[in-house]
Amino acid sequence: MKQIKIGLLGMGNIGTGAYKTLEMNKARIAANTGLDLTITRILEKDLARERDVTVVPEQFTQEADDILAAPDIDIVIELLGGLEPATSFMLTAMQNGKHVVTANKAAVAASYDKLLNTARANRVMFRFEASVGGGIPILNALTTALSANEYEEIRGILNGTTNYILTQMAENGLSYDRALKAAQEQGFAEADPTADVEGHDVANKLSILISLAFGKRVPPENIPTVGITGLTMRDIEKAAADGGKLKLIALARRKGDDIEYSVAPTFVANDHPLAGVRNEFNAIFVRGNAVGELMFYGKGAGPLPTGSAVMGDVTEIARAIAR
Amino acid sequence: MKQIKIGLLGMGNIGTGAYKTLEMNKARIAANTGLDLTITRILEKDLARERDVTVVPEQFTQEADDILAAPDIDIVIELLGGLEPATSFMLTAMQNGKHVVTANKAAVAASYDKLLNTARANRVMFRFEASVGGGIPILNALTTALSANEYEEIRGILNGTTNYILTQMAENGLSYDRALKAAQEQGFAEADPTADVEGHDVANKLSILISLAFGKRVPPENIPTVGITGLTMRDIEKAAADGGKLKLIALARRKGDDIEYSVAPTFVANDHPLAGVRNEFNAIFVRGNAVGELMFYGKGAGPLPTGSAVMGDVTEIARAIAR
Repeated sequence: MKQIKIGLLGMGNIGTGAYKTLEMNKARIAANTGLDLTITRILEKDLARERDVTVVPEQFTQEADDILAAPDIDIVIELLGGLEPATSFMLTAMQNGKHVVTANKAAVAASYDKLLNTARANRVMFRFEASVGGGIPILNALTTALSANEYEEIRGILNGTTNYILTQMAENGLSYDRALKAAQEQGFAEADPTADVEGHDVANKLSILISLAFGKRVPPENIPTVGITGLTMRDIEKAAADGGKLKLIALARRKGDDIEYSVAPTFVANDHPLAGVRNEFNAIFVRGNAVGELMFYGKGAGPLPTGSAVMGDVTEIARAIAR
Repeated sequence: MKQIKIGLLGMGNIGTGAYKTLEMNKARIAANTGLDLTITRILEKDLARERDVTVVPEQFTQEADDILAAPDIDIVIELLGGLEPATSFMLTAMQNGKHVVTANKAAVAASYDKLLNTARANRVMFRFEASVGGGIPILNALTTALSANEYEEIRGILNGTTNYILTQMAENGLSYDRALKAAQEQGFAEADPTADVEGHDVANKLSILISLAFGKRVPPENIPTVGITGLTMRDIEKAAADGGKLKLIALARRKGDDIEYSVAPTFVANDHPLAGVRNEFNAIFVRGNAVGELMFYGKGAGPLPTGSAVMGDVTEIARAIAR
């Protein structure tokens, strides 16, 4: 059986989820593809962390080049997060002829053209399904099965933290502060929730969606972005009285020859499919000129859902290598 | 620009939808793929029908071999429906080295192994996204982006006719007979609705899903199948009183080392994502061991949604040819 060797950059929460996804489903992937996918090296400092996976100390390295420049590694998975050194590592891996998979929305949104051009110039594949919607396979759908459509509108709930907070405010009458605290206790919000609650995380994801669906590059800082920190219980109650819900919506739609886009708390009527998306779930609503209305719903974050998307990308690349 | 030549078998409602989808989006597909996709020949007797597309009489033929044996045709789209001659035409096209795309759930479910083995033996691609869920790209998701999961459960509303009838009974208090008549008037049900209301259409689709998701071949006639003709208003009201809805559910799930499967009217609690799927819409709920719960929602039938899926398959094949 042909072996595909994988280097993993980063084994925190998400890296461990990707490793575990492969560990759980390696045999199934091998049966489906005829390929033996193996993570051979891992860039990670923290060897002591409890991970609940079978990893041997010899797999770990603290030298990025042990992966980025290793002649035997086919695919590099970047799960360090943050802009640097993640972006430089991805570019170096591509320049060394390695295919790259990432979940890093901030890095992809910030350096979209550079990353895609570098991949193209080095004739390697670059995939980032996990960067938008976590486990929901939206990027794959937009770029393959739906690609015979002209997209008219994309409307997404793309951040589980804020959707959890808004759901708790609407359904259980929690104040914003108490709902945020509940999200933090459940592990849905970080200690510093700024990137989530101010909408920056969603703007990164919308920037990526606009590039793929509309072929237009809009850096996230150019997307008008309003978070949920200004919302009060009165706003939530008014939406309910009007027959709907407030959701943090990422919107991109065609308007004549142009695209309009925004991230903002938005009224969603109760009969719209997005209104039923509760708590930490994400969903992306798409309207195409042939397919009409579609919605994709699922877990937008978490180690295993993200691991599913990362290893889906890895499997697709492995299949293409084998061809 | 490289031209990919396509032969179309059948230009009724669905064939016209596929033709129109390509006509609307040909320029966009060319910009995305660098390929000129052109339907050059059409097997169809009815030349007089109003189709609202630009088709010239010279494209039509009444001889299947003008397409199946034409040396210049790369891809054959089968949209005749029914088992024969559709199945024989697909097999002949494959034996002649042509890639095949179909929306024909009955033919795929009846001859799954034969069609896939013939495609493999002749080294051609065979795709049938439109056969399950119409425009919803569920087969592509299960076989690519989600393929690093072990699937635990698939639960689908896979027939728009029956879902429309059940929605009208539950929401507007229509009797079964009046709801069926309304479905026929809206164009959601055929004059003879047997295949839909008795669940046979759904059993075909579930058979295909089981093959792809669980790697197990279960002919549709072996799937325990109950339709909706026996349902009364009392059943609908009881479900509502119990906090849910009756839906015609196609179910397949892992049980130990085995798979259990059925098609039957099933109680769905109101907080399940499938409960909100109304009228002619379809949805497929998937649980994978890494990704957790996902749902795909959209139009399960109709000329343009089906055209979207068919032309998505054609575009993917064209990209692979070009590589």
